[in-house]
Amino acid sequence: MEEQVKEQLIAITGSAYAKTSTAQLLAYSYDATANFQALPDIVLSPSSIEEVQEIVRVCSAHRIPIVSRGSGTNLAAGTTPTSGGVVILFNRMNQILELDEENLTITVQPGVITQEINERVAERGLFYPPDPSSMSISTIGGNVSENSGGLRGLKYGVTRDYVKSLTVVLPSGELLETGGKLAKDVAGYDLTSLFVGSEGTLGIIVEITLGLLPAPITKKTLVVFYDKLERAAETVSSIIAAKIVPATLEFMDQGTITAVEEFMQIGLPTNCEAMLLIEQDGDPEVVERDMEFVHTLCMKQGAISTQLAQTKEEADRLSVARRVALSALARKRPTTILEDATVPRSEIAKMVKAIQEIAVKHNLLICTFGHAGDGNLHPTILTDTRDEEEMARVEMAFADIFDYAISLGGTITGEHGVGEMKAPYLEWKIGKAGIATMKGIKQAIDPLNIMNPGKIFAKSTKKRVVVHNE
Amino acid sequence: MEEQVKEQLIAITGSAYAKTSTAQLLAYSYDATANFQALPDIVLSPSSIEEVQEIVRVCSAHRIPIVSRGSGTNLAAGTTPTSGGVVILFNRMNQILELDEENLTITVQPGVITQEINERVAERGLFYPPDPSSMSISTIGGNVSENSGGLRGLKYGVTRDYVKSLTVVLPSGELLETGGKLAKDVAGYDLTSLFVGSEGTLGIIVEITLGLLPAPITKKTLVVFYDKLERAAETVSSIIAAKIVPATLEFMDQGTITAVEEFMQIGLPTNCEAMLLIEQDGDPEVVERDMEFVHTLCMKQGAISTQLAQTKEEADRLSVARRVALSALARKRPTTILEDATVPRSEIAKMVKAIQEIAVKHNLLICTFGHAGDGNLHPTILTDTRDEEEMARVEMAFADIFDYAISLGGTITGEHGVGEMKAPYLEWKIGKAGIATMKGIKQAIDPLNIMNPGKIFAKSTKKRVVVHNE
Repeated sequence: MEEQVKEQLIAITGSAYAKTSTAQLLAYSYDATANFQALPDIVLSPSSIEEVQEIVRVCSAHRIPIVSRGSGTNLAAGTTPTSGGVVILFNRMNQILELDEENLTITVQPGVITQEINERVAERGLFYPPDPSSMSISTIGGNVSENSGGLRGLKYGVTRDYVKSLTVVLPSGELLETGGKLAKDVAGYDLTSLFVGSEGTLGIIVEITLGLLPAPITKKTLVVFYDKLERAAETVSSIIAAKIVPATLEFMDQGTITAVEEFMQIGLPTNCEAMLLIEQDGDPEVVERDMEFVHTLCMKQGAISTQLAQTKEEADRLSVARRVALSALARKRPTTILEDATVPRSEIAKMVKAIQEIAVKHNLLICTFGHAGDGNLHPTILTDTRDEEEMARVEMAFADIFDYAISLGGTITGEHGVGEMKAPYLEWKIGKAGIATMKGIKQAIDPLNIMNPGKIFAKSTKKRVVVHNE
Repeated sequence: MEEQVKEQLIAITGSAYAKTSTAQLLAYSYDATANFQALPDIVLSPSSIEEVQEIVRVCSAHRIPIVSRGSGTNLAAGTTPTSGGVVILFNRMNQILELDEENLTITVQPGVITQEINERVAERGLFYPPDPSSMSISTIGGNVSENSGGLRGLKYGVTRDYVKSLTVVLPSGELLETGGKLAKDVAGYDLTSLFVGSEGTLGIIVEITLGLLPAPITKKTLVVFYDKLERAAETVSSIIAAKIVPATLEFMDQGTITAVEEFMQIGLPTNCEAMLLIEQDGDPEVVERDMEFVHTLCMKQGAISTQLAQTKEEADRLSVARRVALSALARKRPTTILEDATVPRSEIAKMVKAIQEIAVKHNLLICTFGHAGDGNLHPTILTDTRDEEEMARVEMAFADIFDYAISLGGTITGEHGVGEMKAPYLEWKIGKAGIATMKGIKQAIDPLNIMNPGKIFAKSTKKRVVVHNE
């Protein structure tokens, strides 16, 4: 980046809010994804929409790449620079602007931490359902850009289902306002849904209005262990077949159970092939009835042990195993790579089995946990990026996992995004026509390709070694 | 259209499924919108995706416009031809392909009547919530293309919220498959949501997978009358403020009440300024508690009369007034023009008042009913298209209504679509940047502009006489 351009950019935010030293830039050269890193030229913290517009206009004039970044918890290298340029932070645009109880909406700046939104609306008896595991540190701007999921996806959907309106700085610097505080709006194409999950590749989201729900009155938590994986999967299907949609329906495999037990020593049965964490929320009578029904059903499906929490403290204690899963696994090897291949709910048992076989085939340690209710699994490869030979096997294992997920009607990413990491696999899911359509949209909105370049679209698609034809 | 091209098209479906006589073409020259009409050159009923692809390839080669048409219930001139070309009907692609109870999805062809989907899933204890008033005759393909709403929007959302996956024939003739039977999928841009509500302007939807819910166990119905409009509006706000989200929360103004009473003689109090129809569904205890609370609240808000149905028959009798509203109004003048300006829920009273003032200002008969819970109103102008002077006043009244709705944070169309009719007003809602972004997308996907040309995008934007700055 030319010095003169850098000066222009610094003048917009003031030098107190511009980072340019190598030490500072290093901190924004990577995100939570292993093995992806590149330095930006400058990191800016604008304080207003107008400052964002000015930055974008300078970048547009000089064709400088812009990466919008929240807290950098991305797991698909979606927020790492690929070719220098500007990283925009939203740490100064972190205000809750309005809580509108009559229309059940909250309007926020992108830098607000998602957990803060939860807490603010809870004070008023309201509820913002999307709960990505990172929510205590991730920003709502990041959640919206990635269409984050979470543990409540089955019953409550994902971030996109709650975004009512966006203000976006387009690559030209112009402002676009989409949607509104409206339950119904069909005035042209759904630009709101298009920008949600677009991973910063179409524009910069600078204001967000989210829909809210009345908070559920109560919640109950049940933990169930199975000696056979299939029985856990059958339980998931039977619950849905019984027309019950739990708020949470989480899964951990034997490797994960064992890792958690080694980490915490809380008495988990490490001889079990599967654990389910099941929660229902809502009106007390309904929660009581649903959970009793589910409990009976789990026993019928051959659960070897169940624990139903009677208090909130007990519920927290029971769900801790699932919450620490990733930390427990991360202790075992230097590098943890968390995947999120997702399949239709009916195919979970097949997918988990296949992952176990793929681990054996490539001689890798893969443990799986995730959101069984919505088919969103997190096969987690425990590895070491310094071992090139092993990393080659990791790559092959991913390819096998994606390929098999797609053959089951699934997708390469349920909630983490495509980023730079999964870009070479996107065509496997959406086909040539899908890639061409998405590239057409990208080109129409960002003709200079300055918005988070190198993400979603890869230079080349990975060769598919085995193509399933199921 | 050249004879030779016509022959090519007829060869695709066979002459039994091609309509070319003027009498036949006339039937497809208009839809449910008053005052818009133009003849197509040919009407085709393909029997398969492949036939649709062949038709599109011929049209693409010769730059022939294609209008996809379900049952023609569109209210914004979205399915009238604008410049000849082909109308594609889906009366031979009308099969339910699969009901997947494990994944709670149903896969259908576009020509299936929406009511048929409701009935099929109800047999299995399942529920497809979107319920546009036209559902007993409209097709699901039309509903998806228009992102249809209905009476249950407040609690259950609209068509887009239930579309999981689409198969689309692109303007090139290529097939695009979006989404899947997945609760979570972030593999690139949300093409599913983009095609939903795109009014046939981006491609032809040939297969649809919809998400389903477990059917609610029970439902209760309450009808309430108010002598003052404001009290009805306050009731709507108070219900939401009390954290209750009813399944239905419908509104009728005095003009509509009177028209229905003249039509049916069912004893409606015609001296009332407003009627609310409130329904809750779900588990019996919750429905009972919610409806008791709502009933008490209505009385507190000054309702002058309430009726709570105890049986399904009684509920049907109570809701008949709302269901016949449009028919009752349509009897009064030769032409009925149904609008669907939509505002945030909190602004309903202001909007209804403004509509009444606009009616007086332009000396028109406008009655309003609609979905109060989601702010989606249907100001209905009773007029006569043969009276040019009056039609000019109708146009001015619409402009005033749209302008005021937008000033309240609303939109020009909540559930009917933009079509040809509202295209000149779209920029008022989405601004120049919105129009440019949408046109860019249209151009990228349909560069020859053969997909339902003349819809959504107008040659010129209507001049805004009064611009509110609230």
